[in-house]
Amino acid sequence: MSAPVAWFAADWGTTHLRLWALDAGGTVVWSRDSDEGMGKLAPGGAFETALVRLIGADMPAGPVPVIVCGMAGSRQGWAEAPYATTPCSPPGLDAATRVPTAGERLRVHLLPGVKQDTPADVMRGEETQIAGLIARDPEFDGVVCLPGTHTKWVRISAREIVSFQTFMTGELFDLLSRQSVLRHGIGDGWDAAAFEQAVSDTLARPATIAAQLFGIRSSGLVAGLAGDAARSRLSGLLIGAELAGARPYWLGQRIAILGAEGVGDAYEAALAAQGAQVERVDAAGLTLDGLRAAWSALKEDA
Amino acid sequence: MSAPVAWFAADWGTTHLRLWALDAGGTVVWSRDSDEGMGKLAPGGAFETALVRLIGADMPAGPVPVIVCGMAGSRQGWAEAPYATTPCSPPGLDAATRVPTAGERLRVHLLPGVKQDTPADVMRGEETQIAGLIARDPEFDGVVCLPGTHTKWVRISAREIVSFQTFMTGELFDLLSRQSVLRHGIGDGWDAAAFEQAVSDTLARPATIAAQLFGIRSSGLVAGLAGDAARSRLSGLLIGAELAGARPYWLGQRIAILGAEGVGDAYEAALAAQGAQVERVDAAGLTLDGLRAAWSALKEDA
Repeated sequence: MSAPVAWFAADWGTTHLRLWALDAGGTVVWSRDSDEGMGKLAPGGAFETALVRLIGADMPAGPVPVIVCGMAGSRQGWAEAPYATTPCSPPGLDAATRVPTAGERLRVHLLPGVKQDTPADVMRGEETQIAGLIARDPEFDGVVCLPGTHTKWVRISAREIVSFQTFMTGELFDLLSRQSVLRHGIGDGWDAAAFEQAVSDTLARPATIAAQLFGIRSSGLVAGLAGDAARSRLSGLLIGAELAGARPYWLGQRIAILGAEGVGDAYEAALAAQGAQVERVDAAGLTLDGLRAAWSALKEDA
Repeated sequence: MSAPVAWFAADWGTTHLRLWALDAGGTVVWSRDSDEGMGKLAPGGAFETALVRLIGADMPAGPVPVIVCGMAGSRQGWAEAPYATTPCSPPGLDAATRVPTAGERLRVHLLPGVKQDTPADVMRGEETQIAGLIARDPEFDGVVCLPGTHTKWVRISAREIVSFQTFMTGELFDLLSRQSVLRHGIGDGWDAAAFEQAVSDTLARPATIAAQLFGIRSSGLVAGLAGDAARSRLSGLLIGAELAGARPYWLGQRIAILGAEGVGDAYEAALAAQGAQVERVDAAGLTLDGLRAAWSALKEDA
């Protein structure tokens, strides 16, 4: 027989909800996924309905806390959890927004995202991964790269998010490979040499990015560029330009790359080619560790 | 009563077909548009069917030439008209591809596009606008900017296309303003000051383009950036980065901007802010003038 569920942790993003049920010691009793992300739900009560449905017959009898991070706390989400402002620690429960619920069995806390005023920037969800990283390694002092649709570079020191910068690299890759004129020549495979050459091209001359991108199409027509090389070159051009822009973040710094294998490998290869020392951090469980850190504070308060 | 139709001129692009019927002196007898662009037609005979349908009851009795420029001459078009290679004059009828037709009343000539081997680049249709420009001003020596989905910068000297470079700027603007996360904050209007600031930002630091783009979203969330300013900033960031990359084309050169008022105005403002001298060339009729130049050669041959 499993331990009783003492609280829930939720990573509620734009496209997915990941829910964990945990006992008082922070051990996972069960976990579930749903595709009822923020993008599918109207602001407000629809979130409670989706959460109650996902818990189903496993709803605990007594009122239990639910600690939520991610887009559910945005203006278009369950309720708005206003941003903390850099420099700041990853915000905990003291900064969370309590959402009233129709039922009495859940006490919902939405963790805030983090904003930066100058230059303007925002994150929602990544701050909880960072909380998990700091919980694992409280002395971490360096830069974290979180590759994704909107790749983030985050300076961390003394358990605080000092500053950060977001690049639309992943979204540009998706749009260009699927919906632009380049889609005609993009394959499925990978060509490491083409990737590295492309990184080097835009690192050296980032201003030519929009011309180099069209060059993928031209090289297909004129020089028979293969689909795998085209896809790898597209990725490399975008990452190379990003590394040129993010140089103040990574040059001479301790760098940890969080997350997804494929794109994480690409960032690691690109940075290594520039002589940068890179650590890889397994992102699995990092968000949950961040939510556990928030739960610990709640326990101490109780 | 109008003069008899001696030949047809066609600008056959991806999305549209523009057809002119002209008399032996090159005067337009009538003209018609169709949305049966290359993108809607299977390669081969479907093009003849579309053309015959558009001419309809106005089909001349005797066989007449049809001079076609644009994507109809691409591999996915009516038939492939192989590229001429830079440096070269805008290719004329001597380089055109004759396409066999089922009917006997049309003799179809597909004008080639132009390619560049290093760096790889291609154009189809723009070379005929340039032929029109050279027909109007044979001594033109300088750089032509053709803003559009794929903006082209073309060096012209001694009636030849010396070299050129294509930037995906227009397509990036369309994708980002309509299909990316930025679409939530993009308005319909124009804010000239926001545009100029953005041009200046990416001209100075083009490598940060992917971060500056996400900054439009962040500034909307954090600082209430207005929709019109967001749209103008998006355009300015992309054009500023392009100008940084295209600097070898325009710096210290005679520059002529061809075409579309709105985006042509934006390029003119951006270049003027850099102290560049810019001429505007009315692009209306330029393609037809280029097709007339090809027809003149046919007349002389006959």
